[in-house]
Amino acid sequence: MKLVRWGDSGDEKPGLVGPDGTIRDLSGVIRDIAGPYLARDSLANLARIDPATLPAVPAGTRLGPCVGHTRNFIAIGLNYADHAAETGAEIPKEPIIFNKAPSCIVGPNDDVIIPKASVKTDWEVELAVVIGKRASYVHANEAMDYVAGFCVCHDVSEREFQIERGGTWTKGKGCPTFGPLGPWLVTPDAVPDVQNLSMWLDVNGERMQTGSTKTMIFDVKQIVSYLSHFMLLEPGDVVTTGTPPGVGLGMKPPRFLKSGDVVSLGIEGLGEQRQAVVAFDDWTARKGAGQPTS
Amino acid sequence: MKLVRWGDSGDEKPGLVGPDGTIRDLSGVIRDIAGPYLARDSLANLARIDPATLPAVPAGTRLGPCVGHTRNFIAIGLNYADHAAETGAEIPKEPIIFNKAPSCIVGPNDDVIIPKASVKTDWEVELAVVIGKRASYVHANEAMDYVAGFCVCHDVSEREFQIERGGTWTKGKGCPTFGPLGPWLVTPDAVPDVQNLSMWLDVNGERMQTGSTKTMIFDVKQIVSYLSHFMLLEPGDVVTTGTPPGVGLGMKPPRFLKSGDVVSLGIEGLGEQRQAVVAFDDWTARKGAGQPTS
Repeated sequence: MKLVRWGDSGDEKPGLVGPDGTIRDLSGVIRDIAGPYLARDSLANLARIDPATLPAVPAGTRLGPCVGHTRNFIAIGLNYADHAAETGAEIPKEPIIFNKAPSCIVGPNDDVIIPKASVKTDWEVELAVVIGKRASYVHANEAMDYVAGFCVCHDVSEREFQIERGGTWTKGKGCPTFGPLGPWLVTPDAVPDVQNLSMWLDVNGERMQTGSTKTMIFDVKQIVSYLSHFMLLEPGDVVTTGTPPGVGLGMKPPRFLKSGDVVSLGIEGLGEQRQAVVAFDDWTARKGAGQPTS
Repeated sequence: MKLVRWGDSGDEKPGLVGPDGTIRDLSGVIRDIAGPYLARDSLANLARIDPATLPAVPAGTRLGPCVGHTRNFIAIGLNYADHAAETGAEIPKEPIIFNKAPSCIVGPNDDVIIPKASVKTDWEVELAVVIGKRASYVHANEAMDYVAGFCVCHDVSEREFQIERGGTWTKGKGCPTFGPLGPWLVTPDAVPDVQNLSMWLDVNGERMQTGSTKTMIFDVKQIVSYLSHFMLLEPGDVVTTGTPPGVGLGMKPPRFLKSGDVVSLGIEGLGEQRQAVVAFDDWTARKGAGQPTS
C-alpha cells in the first residue's frame, strides 16, 4: 500500500495510491497519515478498502510529506560502506545519530531553499523509516513490527554549517526545506526486501548518486533496535538511514547546489522526488516573508 | 503569569497558578499549554482572567511538563563559562547544539529512570526557553518577541552513551524521563532579568550545583537568534540553555546517580523540581512494561 498526504502545505489530507496510479482521498476514513493511524491495525483497515470506492484526487494536486506531525526526525550518519570510504571516514563501530529539525520536513516536490549565507548546500538520497508503534528496548528480530513503512528522504545538508561551525551536525541538517519526504509511505508488505533497493540522485539530469540499500553498514532492523535502546521511538517518528556515495562534498573539487538547479532522486519501489533549488533571497522575493512548513 | 499542565501523564490539562499558590483549571478556556496557545495574544488573554473565577485543582494533583506537544527539544552544550572550565573544555566560539528526544519530556516531579545498562547517569539543572512564535532569521534584539516563557529543565544525561558510544551527544540525552520540564512556564513579564537568576541542584539533600544564568556564554537572546539562522523554530519548541558547574562527571572521582537517589533542583522565580531516581528494572517491576510519556 502506498499512502500519501495531499493538498496545501500545513493542511494536507490523507490519501492512497490506487492500482492505476490515481490518488484516492482517505479523509473520510482517517484524519491523517500520522500518529495513531500508523498502527498496524489501522493500516490493515485501510488495506481492506477498495480504492475505487474512494473519491479521486485531481491529478496534479501537490503532495505533502508522506507522514504528518513528526516529532523526532533522526538521521544515521556514514551508514553506507561505500559513502564512508568516499568521505575518508572510518567505518563506524556503532550507528552515528544526529537530528534534523522536524520543521524542515516538506513535500517531495517542494522547493529546496538554499539558506542565507550558505555556500555548501549538498544533496543526499536516503531511505527513511517511519515508526508505527512505540518502541523501547526492541530486539532487532522484532524491530520490523514497529515500522509503519518506508519512504524516500532527501537529507539536504549544508556542509559548512554541519562541519565547520562547532559541535554536532545538527546545524547543517535542519534548515527550512532540508527534509523532503515522500512521495509515498510504502507499507512493509509492499517492499519485498528493504535491504536490496537501488537508489539514485540526479542534479540537472546528471547522475550523481547511485547505490543500493544492500551496502548499508547497519540495516533497518539494527538501526530501529539500536535507537530504541537510547530513546523511546513514537508513531510518526522518522529515521533516515544514511546515503550512498556521490554527494557533492565528496567530489574533486567539491560541488554544491546553486539557485536554479533541479534535483531528482528516487528509490526502487518507493517513488521519485523532484525539487527546484532556490536561493533564500529569490524565494522570499517570490513568496513573501513566510517560511515553508510541514 | 505561571502556567502549568496538570493531571495524568499523556492527558494533562492546562492551568495557572493563582496569587495564593492554588492551581486553577484553564481547560474551559484553552485546550492546552501548547502550540498556538503560546502566542503573545493568547497569553495576554489568559493574563486578563481573574484566577479566583476559575475552578481550583485539588492540591497534590500531579504536574505534567509545563508545555505540551514539543517537537524540537534543542539543547545548548557547554554554555556556562564555569562549567566549561570544570569539564576541561574550551570556551565554544559559537553555541554547541544537540537534541534531546521529545519523548524524554516528563513532569517536574516524575521519576527519573536510569536506563538499562547505564552506569553514568548524571544531573544538570538548566534554564529552558519555550518558543511562542515561529522564528526564522531573527535578530538578537528581537528574539524575546519569540519567547513564550521560561522553565526549569533537568537535562538528565548518560555520560557513557553521550561521549563513549560514537558520534554526537544525542545518545546520552534523550533516554525516557531524561527531560523533566516545569513546574511552571513563567511568562517573560514575570521574570525581571532572565540573565540574573540563581540556580541550584541537590542530590539527597547535598548541594551539587550552584550557579547563575549570568555566567552563560551565549545569553537567551543570542541563542534564540543563532538557532533561528539554522532552523525554523516553532511554538512549543523547547531550548534548554546549558548547565552551571557541579555535574557528577566533573567530580573527582566522578559520581553518578543510583536507584533510590532523590534529586531536587530549582531556578530563582521558576520553581523547583524533585525526582526519585529509579533503576530501569525496578521501575518496570513496579509499573509494568510500559514507558513514561510526555
